[in-house]
Amino acid sequence: MSPVTIARISEEPLDVAAHLAAVEHAEAGAETSFIGRVRDHDPDASGAVDALEYTSHPDAERTLGELARRAAEEHGARVAVSHRIGRLAVGDAAVVIAVSAAHRGEAFAACRQVIEDIKRELPVWKRQLASDGSAVWKGLGG
Amino acid sequence: MSPVTIARISEEPLDVAAHLAAVEHAEAGAETSFIGRVRDHDPDASGAVDALEYTSHPDAERTLGELARRAAEEHGARVAVSHRIGRLAVGDAAVVIAVSAAHRGEAFAACRQVIEDIKRELPVWKRQLASDGSAVWKGLGG
Repeated sequence: MSPVTIARISEEPLDVAAHLAAVEHAEAGAETSFIGRVRDHDPDASGAVDALEYTSHPDAERTLGELARRAAEEHGARVAVSHRIGRLAVGDAAVVIAVSAAHRGEAFAACRQVIEDIKRELPVWKRQLASDGSAVWKGLGG
Repeated sequence: MSPVTIARISEEPLDVAAHLAAVEHAEAGAETSFIGRVRDHDPDASGAVDALEYTSHPDAERTLGELARRAAEEHGARVAVSHRIGRLAVGDAAVVIAVSAAHRGEAFAACRQVIEDIKRELPVWKRQLASDGSAVWKGLGG
């Protein structure tokens, strides 16, 4: 099985259990996951957040696969990761990452690396829609 | 809501989705999880691992609640955690931890702290049953 079992940009709601199942195997003693959700407020917003609109570059899925493979190889891990695009409400998952490895050190390190690399490298942008009607574009790292 | 929503020693199979749901809330932008599973081999065992038998001290659930509360308070996080006892087969989850926090740094730090403190402090022991018929007791930190 490939060390990257899912690497997807999706307009559909993300399935956390499916990502965890996609990295499970008999030699893995440790699984970690990260879920990034839309919060109900943001220090940079002018009001409470109503929704976010995510847009991706056509190359984003390839970039996601590459950064997932890099983390998997560096840490001897399996990785499943998806980023959702489109309009998301408060509480919706924008990013789901699941990782498995023989031991917990590698499982935590690979999971952390994937989300940091997504923030730094993935060409996905978000437009924050506040309850006062204002809208703010936020780029990578936001 | 209490920052520790689940802290349980259980003889039943652990429900990962229930732990993640127990820490979800509108102000949490980041959720992390850790699952520790029985592996099919162990460098200390004399053969392949068939099963593990976990036994706990009667005070273990109180200790689990205390270390979870400590991590929750130090990192401004919510924590749900369970440790399973009894006989577990390869692939079964022995520990499940879910954490939520405003940002990913705290969510990763609290999750990591809970599993390290479990390994160091929780009075749970395991007896490793190998396929060659041998059995080895392993204490804290194993």
